[in-house]
Amino acid sequence: MAILLLFLSSSFCHAVAGVGVRGGRLPPTLATRRQYAAGDGQSVAAAAVPSQVKYETRYFTQRLDHFNALPASNGTFQQRYLVNGTFWGGKAAPVFVYAGNEGDVELFTNNTGFMWEAAPRFRAMLVFIEHRYYGESLPFGGNRTTAFADSSATGYLTTTQALADFAEVILSLKANLTACKAPVVLFGGSYGGMLAAWMRIKYPHIVMGAVASSAPILGLNGLSDPYSFFDTISNDFKSESKHCYDVLRNSWSEIDKALSTHAGRARLNHTFNMCKGNVDSIPSMVENALIYAPMMDYPTPSNFLTSLPAYPVREICRAIDHPTSGNDTVSRIKDAMTIYYNSTGKLACFAGAGDDDPFGMFPGWTWQACTEVIMTMSYGISNSSVFPPVPFNLTDYLAGCLASTGVPPRPHWIEAYFGGYDIRNVLKRSGSNIIFFNGLRDPWSAGGILKSISNSIIALVEPKGGHHVDLRFSNEEDPEWLKKVRRKEMRIIADWLKQYYSDEAIDSMMN
Amino acid sequence: MAILLLFLSSSFCHAVAGVGVRGGRLPPTLATRRQYAAGDGQSVAAAAVPSQVKYETRYFTQRLDHFNALPASNGTFQQRYLVNGTFWGGKAAPVFVYAGNEGDVELFTNNTGFMWEAAPRFRAMLVFIEHRYYGESLPFGGNRTTAFADSSATGYLTTTQALADFAEVILSLKANLTACKAPVVLFGGSYGGMLAAWMRIKYPHIVMGAVASSAPILGLNGLSDPYSFFDTISNDFKSESKHCYDVLRNSWSEIDKALSTHAGRARLNHTFNMCKGNVDSIPSMVENALIYAPMMDYPTPSNFLTSLPAYPVREICRAIDHPTSGNDTVSRIKDAMTIYYNSTGKLACFAGAGDDDPFGMFPGWTWQACTEVIMTMSYGISNSSVFPPVPFNLTDYLAGCLASTGVPPRPHWIEAYFGGYDIRNVLKRSGSNIIFFNGLRDPWSAGGILKSISNSIIALVEPKGGHHVDLRFSNEEDPEWLKKVRRKEMRIIADWLKQYYSDEAIDSMMN
Repeated sequence: MAILLLFLSSSFCHAVAGVGVRGGRLPPTLATRRQYAAGDGQSVAAAAVPSQVKYETRYFTQRLDHFNALPASNGTFQQRYLVNGTFWGGKAAPVFVYAGNEGDVELFTNNTGFMWEAAPRFRAMLVFIEHRYYGESLPFGGNRTTAFADSSATGYLTTTQALADFAEVILSLKANLTACKAPVVLFGGSYGGMLAAWMRIKYPHIVMGAVASSAPILGLNGLSDPYSFFDTISNDFKSESKHCYDVLRNSWSEIDKALSTHAGRARLNHTFNMCKGNVDSIPSMVENALIYAPMMDYPTPSNFLTSLPAYPVREICRAIDHPTSGNDTVSRIKDAMTIYYNSTGKLACFAGAGDDDPFGMFPGWTWQACTEVIMTMSYGISNSSVFPPVPFNLTDYLAGCLASTGVPPRPHWIEAYFGGYDIRNVLKRSGSNIIFFNGLRDPWSAGGILKSISNSIIALVEPKGGHHVDLRFSNEEDPEWLKKVRRKEMRIIADWLKQYYSDEAIDSMMN
Repeated sequence: MAILLLFLSSSFCHAVAGVGVRGGRLPPTLATRRQYAAGDGQSVAAAAVPSQVKYETRYFTQRLDHFNALPASNGTFQQRYLVNGTFWGGKAAPVFVYAGNEGDVELFTNNTGFMWEAAPRFRAMLVFIEHRYYGESLPFGGNRTTAFADSSATGYLTTTQALADFAEVILSLKANLTACKAPVVLFGGSYGGMLAAWMRIKYPHIVMGAVASSAPILGLNGLSDPYSFFDTISNDFKSESKHCYDVLRNSWSEIDKALSTHAGRARLNHTFNMCKGNVDSIPSMVENALIYAPMMDYPTPSNFLTSLPAYPVREICRAIDHPTSGNDTVSRIKDAMTIYYNSTGKLACFAGAGDDDPFGMFPGWTWQACTEVIMTMSYGISNSSVFPPVPFNLTDYLAGCLASTGVPPRPHWIEAYFGGYDIRNVLKRSGSNIIFFNGLRDPWSAGGILKSISNSIIALVEPKGGHHVDLRFSNEEDPEWLKKVRRKEMRIIADWLKQYYSDEAIDSMMN
């Protein structure tokens, strides 16, 4: 991976358009993707919220546009943030802030166990800030219909505005607490991890350190191998068994062939037991599972977006390699889908693609992925993939975006503003205090920082790790490597704080 | 000064409003201020442009708003930039960029001799980028009337947009030259120096170093002593002679008293020889001279905005202490004005305040100083000043701004975005490669970085220096300290480049 990135870095100056076709499908979101409901309305397991998760809900009157002085920019909206101050050690004690990403902030608050578990140790205040245009933090009256009415309303949804929002919330919070010396550490996973890293780079005076978990800041246009996301997925399955990989590769033509005849459709319906006989959605249902199982390839059973067993990739391959429904490809795939969608065994039938969006991710993320956050690393599928190949074609992708949003995409902007090209030399000289965690099972890791840049910009890379697994609540069953990663992160944060207190001549025992 | 800043830093968390009154006068601009014409239309000396100043004029189609995706933001304007590539050593050789500030870029191009003199040595390309809304770089049709029609047109004039403009021009230029490895060093004086420093802090991936000359980045609201600008001026005059300082202090009441009677006005007119008998503008004419002489207190005769002798503060005090027109205060002041406005002796009479704005500074800077760039360091005048005292009153200032622009000022924004509070510890950990030059005669130096922060963020402080004197063309008569400062700046830039080429594994002799 490191070699590949290096190669790309030295051959591309800045974003360069590619060639190919991806058939107009939307790329996966970073954290999730339209859910494929398994059973009516039961798709999203209402995961039990751990008992320590208790917070106060507050709202900040946020400026609509930070970067111009047009009259309309003075408009405001209510930005939600959640606060727990019970562990806080007082005015010079740390404030741990979560950089809200593409969804309802409560989802991330309830799942970012690392912060809840670290807070007592560091006597830290916890603050979870919702990203504009997600959850309740909707401009133009606080409802989705008006916030996403057209590009004149949604146009304020940009990454730079979101970071400036965080800056203003943090400054206001500290001013209200008269705690100007309190060090702020920012945490984020996935797109939130990108935001956390970028915030430390752009606002070092506000955030003294960032834990950027599974943050593919090199997955953007011009910086990434456009096949790397799906190649990682394919390698994940291949690493379990060559047979599993082969069955998955061949399954698409088998399913397509079956879908093309009455008898085949009847057989598919019998095998899969689709709710309402909706066999046409089998391919997208399978695709969804094969994309998300590698991301959520956690070492213990999880419940972040759906109930999954430990090591779901292994379990999917085990189901394929040792099927119970039959030895044909379709039966093997059905057994694999049972692992992903029905590990609890409670569902009577598989539903098709659902339109539900319980965490409010889609209108916003679809917009962002089409206007600025052009994550080309996931736009091509190579010939050796477990998915049908899709040549990378940025031009077509951007044309599709223009048609869907009505706004010309800006595929070079994020790199122009945040950088990425030659990032090692740049950050070595002008950055500090960032942890980049990546689990190599996670397809987004291919866009991550996988090698430490300096003694305070540290890459933690775990071959067996999934998408921001370090940020999840700990579990007795956690493997040693995961316990070690979290201990290491705690130690690094402690080092940052120690240095901060020394710089500021604050006796940390006294704060 | 350092002690004072430290005191402010530890007592203020972030911007805190003050109390007092400043009578609605606009603060001085950084580089200049409405000219007080000395003679009809001859106010601005058309300084001879040195022969090496030769450039090609180019235009970049610039996006109107970089930070949101509203349909209107896709609008564009033609941004002017001037290029000289004759010294350039090729694809890996440096590009020296001037960060255009509040005025026609040709003014700065013709006067920033340091870049012209450094270019051959470094085999550097020279690029001077005009700041949006100045010179020819006017949105909305390229004319001032439409660009400054109302806040909906002028609202795109912000510091953050200007920096993003620079980023886009530089990236485009390097892409067109296929010179992605060419290191960019940014230069700027005054507000342009602030932009240069901020650009290095915010866009380290685009600009590998910055020479920020006389950049009062700590002169902003919440960071500065609001009396420091005028206190420095007073100290400058006092350092020449206590008598000079006393005469200046007392002159206001003398002039006001004279203005209040017919006989007094006749006497003033006789003494000053005002064009058209315009005695009412004597106080503002004097004020202007006393503000700008300390800024332009250069060791050799200069011609930047007006023709001045070497060391004009000393000359003004000499005229006051050894008058030729008479021993009364009014005569002494008249002799002082001759130094500032008529050192060439060519003018028959003093004109009043002129409405001319030959460098296109005013509509833009007035807007910026009232919306974002709230330089509070120049908003109060203490009781011991050579000027009549004006208590600092931010509230009144902001109310005046709101009334004049129709846009609520944002006195905290610049600090929120760029930082400033606790800047030493922040930049020590997250910045590099900035030279902060300040001459202590320059009143803006009170808002500058006067102590080195690290071994690559270096403060060069000259007790005898004026406003960005280091950037001027060299002169045989330059004192040794000035020659030394420029040599030091060259050496530091050479060190940055050496390190850059080493980081990039480029043989600098081969580029």
